[in-house]
Amino acid sequence: MPAAMTRIAICAPSTPFTRDDAARVEALAAAEFPQLDLAFHDQCFQVDGHFAGSDERRLSVFVDCANDPAFHAVWFVRGGYGANRIAQDAMHHLNAHAATKSYLGYSDGGIMLAALYRAGIGQPVHAPMPTDIRRGGGEAAVRRTLAWLAGDCGGQEPSLDDQTPTVAFNLMTLAMLVGTALMPDLSGHVVMVEEVAEHLYAVDRLLFHVTAHLAAVGIAGLRLGRVSDVPENDRPFGSEPLAMVQHWCARTGIPYLGPADIGHDIDNKIVPFGLA
Amino acid sequence: MPAAMTRIAICAPSTPFTRDDAARVEALAAAEFPQLDLAFHDQCFQVDGHFAGSDERRLSVFVDCANDPAFHAVWFVRGGYGANRIAQDAMHHLNAHAATKSYLGYSDGGIMLAALYRAGIGQPVHAPMPTDIRRGGGEAAVRRTLAWLAGDCGGQEPSLDDQTPTVAFNLMTLAMLVGTALMPDLSGHVVMVEEVAEHLYAVDRLLFHVTAHLAAVGIAGLRLGRVSDVPENDRPFGSEPLAMVQHWCARTGIPYLGPADIGHDIDNKIVPFGLA
Repeated sequence: MPAAMTRIAICAPSTPFTRDDAARVEALAAAEFPQLDLAFHDQCFQVDGHFAGSDERRLSVFVDCANDPAFHAVWFVRGGYGANRIAQDAMHHLNAHAATKSYLGYSDGGIMLAALYRAGIGQPVHAPMPTDIRRGGGEAAVRRTLAWLAGDCGGQEPSLDDQTPTVAFNLMTLAMLVGTALMPDLSGHVVMVEEVAEHLYAVDRLLFHVTAHLAAVGIAGLRLGRVSDVPENDRPFGSEPLAMVQHWCARTGIPYLGPADIGHDIDNKIVPFGLA
Repeated sequence: MPAAMTRIAICAPSTPFTRDDAARVEALAAAEFPQLDLAFHDQCFQVDGHFAGSDERRLSVFVDCANDPAFHAVWFVRGGYGANRIAQDAMHHLNAHAATKSYLGYSDGGIMLAALYRAGIGQPVHAPMPTDIRRGGGEAAVRRTLAWLAGDCGGQEPSLDDQTPTVAFNLMTLAMLVGTALMPDLSGHVVMVEEVAEHLYAVDRLLFHVTAHLAAVGIAGLRLGRVSDVPENDRPFGSEPLAMVQHWCARTGIPYLGPADIGHDIDNKIVPFGLA
């Protein structure tokens, strides 16, 4: 292997992937990014009920990938649910090699990003995951992360500047993080949120909860990403996500800063946690 | 009206009810509890998108009912979603008459119960609501609350004692309350939780969040009510609610105290907040 190769460990802190979809991602990377070497860990394909293996298995594989000096980055294969069952323990097992890596993912993977950011370990990055290959046109999303790993920052969220530290989260994921031992200190940060497949009343409820917590720590402001695949309710909610976020920002004194180009879709942009 | 009549104001802090179902509840009360006088406020039937009237309307009607010396109790007609948009403002407008009343409901109504309990106003009570008349056999649930209002405590949750203050919440409702300005101090309390219509992975996620917060305040222990109407997922979760709550209690050091006889069903028992 030439010295210039960037080796990327891919593991599943939450739910399992399939070998067929992994092969598609490998083929895309091989064709377009020969300087990247993707290593899908077998654990990505393990199934234990909802999860990609037991808590112990997902924990040990993540720690192995993070601590291995042969890898430059750890990419979460997919979200779903489950990272909160291992994230806190994982932080206690990371070594000096783990601190040199980037960690990439979103959705439930945001739990790992949050825990790493709180612990000050490595570079957490909100970014498309291998699972995005499953979307129509999903190659564009996967390619965005691969390009970033190859040194091209063109896929970063356009509102990022080098003045204000920024993070990006799925709204439900952030709602479950606030007030827990996994939550980083976001004072002074721009916080971007996006949501998928939640009823509008649930989005409003989550915004109530999240703004109450974020106002208490004094964030720089909130940006709203896309709220997509909203299920139909028995009646219209009567308000759209933009109005909701403006309502709760006004109620809690958080500046609303405008849209964020993130979401559960192929246009989801890259947000390195902290200063870009 | 004879002096012995107990007058009950019924209003809708969250979502609307129908006049037909209200008539069924009135007929049941008239036939079996002549000492109770139910007053369904017109606002129960108002519709504004998702809500039973605008925030301003729901707020002012709740405050009017609570502050009116003619009423002995305020009964929430239905949950759904929306009480969190008015609860904090409402507390600032309650008078001395509001402090003499019982407030009954559950589900999203738990938001109002929490805010009242935090403010030390009146007697919040987890109890079936008029909307339970819609369930098969729902008369039994409605009758339980009517009997309690008429002075019969036989419908109270059987594990209650006069030693340990207790509260009961829908799990999602409690998850949205923790860490906000509506959350009462539950140190030393038994906390009962129940859930409906959430995927098992979501229940596990909510338990992670709630136990993290409750462990920090030092509750006496957790009791698990029923987790009902769980939607089918694309694969089995691999763990049942009892195992989940035991897992998170063990992780956070909260004593798990056993089942609670509460839930979104006709057997839902009554839990007066505090000491029974």
